[in-house]
Order: sequence, then C-alpha cells, then structure tokens
Amino acid sequence: MKKKISEASLRRLSWYLRYLERFKEEVGDVISSKELSDALGLSDAQIRRDLFTLGGFGKRGVGYNVENLYDFLSTFFGLDKEQTAILVGCGNLGKSLLQYKGFKKRKFIIKYAFDIDKRIIGREIAGVLIEDIKDMKKRVTANQVIYGIVTTPASSAQDVVNQMIDTGIKAILNFASITIKIPEGVALSPVDFAMELEWLSYHMHHKVKT
Amino acid sequence: MKKKISEASLRRLSWYLRYLERFKEEVGDVISSKELSDALGLSDAQIRRDLFTLGGFGKRGVGYNVENLYDFLSTFFGLDKEQTAILVGCGNLGKSLLQYKGFKKRKFIIKYAFDIDKRIIGREIAGVLIEDIKDMKKRVTANQVIYGIVTTPASSAQDVVNQMIDTGIKAILNFASITIKIPEGVALSPVDFAMELEWLSYHMHHKVKT
Repeated sequence: MKKKISEASLRRLSWYLRYLERFKEEVGDVISSKELSDALGLSDAQIRRDLFTLGGFGKRGVGYNVENLYDFLSTFFGLDKEQTAILVGCGNLGKSLLQYKGFKKRKFIIKYAFDIDKRIIGREIAGVLIEDIKDMKKRVTANQVIYGIVTTPASSAQDVVNQMIDTGIKAILNFASITIKIPEGVALSPVDFAMELEWLSYHMHHKVKT
Repeated sequence: MKKKISEASLRRLSWYLRYLERFKEEVGDVISSKELSDALGLSDAQIRRDLFTLGGFGKRGVGYNVENLYDFLSTFFGLDKEQTAILVGCGNLGKSLLQYKGFKKRKFIIKYAFDIDKRIIGREIAGVLIEDIKDMKKRVTANQVIYGIVTTPASSAQDVVNQMIDTGIKAILNFASITIKIPEGVALSPVDFAMELEWLSYHMHHKVKT
C-alpha cells in the first residue's frame, strides 16, 4: 500500500481499532457500521467508505467480523509484530510510561531507558534498567531500535532528539511541551494531554450529548 | 451554536488550534489554507469548509488572520476563560500532570489533588496540596468544579469516577487504562498514549514522508 492516506482517515482508523479493542472484551463476533457510527459519532457512510478503501470489509446488513477487522487494522498499523523502543528522561512521567500497560498491549516494548542523573542511573523501573545516556548509541545500534520516547524537561528535549537521531532512531514520540525540529526521513509525534481536555471543554460549553 | 459538530470536524478544529499555537511563535500574522493543509496533511478544501462553517473566515488569496482565528477557536473550545479541575491519584503520572504546563497554557488549572495514601497526603506538588479523597466533595461543591482527572491505578478508577460524579463533576479525563462506565449527562474522555505510537508505526511501516 503506497497510497498516502489522509491524516483524518488515519485518525479514524485508529479510533476504529481502539473501539474494537474495547468492544472485543464486551460483545460478540460482529459489529455493524451503524453500531460503530453511533459509538464514534461518525456517519455510517464515512465508516463504510474508510473500511471499503482498506479492503472491502463487511456486507450490507451483515456487519464486520470483529476479529478479522481488528487483525486487519492491527497489521495496517504495524502492530502485529513486537517493536522495541527506548525512553529518555526517567522523571515522574518517564517512570509512569515505563509502567504504562497500553504500550505493551500494542506490542511496543520499552526495553531501554536513559537519564543523565547519576542518582537514578542503575535503578530499575518495571523491569527496565535506567542507564547513562552515554550508553544510548551502543544499545540502539546493537538492537536496531527505531522508536524513541522523549520524557525530558522541555529545555533538554531538542538536544536529546538530536542525539537519538544520531544513534539511528527514526520515529520519536515527544512528551516534552516544546516544538522540536527534525530532519527529513524522521517522524515525530507530539503528545498533548490537553487535547482531550479541549474536547471535554467543547462538550461542556455546547452541552452536546456525549 | 446548537448544531452537533461531528467528532472528526472537532478533531480537525483542535489540530488547527494546536498548529496555530505553534505557528504564532514562529511566523507572522496571516496563514493560508494551503499552508495549513501542507502542515496537517488535509486538503485545502476541507480546511476552508471547516472554517467557513464556523464563521466564514478568510478570503481567497488573502488567508486567515492568525490572531483572530486563534481567538475564535479558543472561544469555540471554551478555552478563553479559566477553568478549574481536580485530580485524583498522585502517583508518578498524577505528579507529572500537576507539573505539566500544557494545561495551564489552555487555562485549565488543576487546583485540588486527592489521594488515599496517608504517606503523601499533606505534601505539595507544583503548588497544589494533596488532600484526603474524603475531602473531595467539600472542595468540588464549594468551588463548583466540573472537570476531573483520573490518574489512579486501573483497579480503583471506576470507583473514583463514581465518587467524582457524586460530588458534581461533569467532565472526566481518564488516564487509567480501563473502560469506565458513566451515566448520561457526564462526558468522559480516555487518554491513550499509545495512539500516537500507532501513528508513528503506520508511518514507519508505510514509509510515508512526514
């Protein structure tokens, strides 16, 4: 699949995947586009179009096989195989991400963690040893890691990202609240907790039923 | 504005706002729909349609006044006025959210924090006193707080949400990785760090230029 999919479709596909994850635990084998559309506030037609583009899932009046659709979306997002990540910055946020179960569920395994603070280097969090950032290059190269997670203070985030890219990291999840510059060929995704608060705030101000 | 806006438009409007926040620091007074569309990977037409629906911003060939558009979107999301939130669960994640600057930037102020752990009750983090969860109702009622943030372990999240709703909380941001049930009239938004990793993973697997 070489075609560029729009950012908006990608987000929707990601919502479908997340919804199915929950749905799988609660309900059965089949889900209709109507059920998906009610749950996600999108139109039936939009959902059918998205899934049709991907591979013609579902038949009118029959719905989607939950297991098949889930597997297909997982593969589409590259979540079917285990992927290794490093994390730099083992403060409160770094620690909580090392303990976060949502990554493991999607087969993202944070295997290596780094910091510059001698007082915490050598400690272990959720089974991961905190190492000196000087050892980052060695680890990344030896294990061909491409994912990096930045949980440093904003003031050192750009420097850490530069170092990560030097070691061969290609995809970066940035939790530091600062805009980061990256060269071509590297992907970076900022994480912004406040985005969800905007959504809530909108619903509170417009009293839309959720 | 009573019309229900689709989830997808809402997300796009939220991206526009976030992009403008960054853009404001770096560039000038005016932004074209072309610049926005290049930056966000959406079509020109989509962006013009979204903003036209909201209030007919921009003229063809002239672009949008960044300041006006930013203010308008902030107001749309209810971010023009200060809003107060409580937080329950002062472990690593709770602590890092109390220190997180992105909330303050959007005028969400976490004023009260609660826990059940006697060892941390009475401590202060980023100027916020950690209080006994038994005092939650008193605080929420006296200050008419409607926003609640849940950063407890998954096992106690549903119970904490029930307690929050009892006190009058109407909008909940859930960081615990468990599905939470809420009654009608309450809004809940789950925060999932792994969503951004999906996006990165997709880009890595499809080698799409980002």
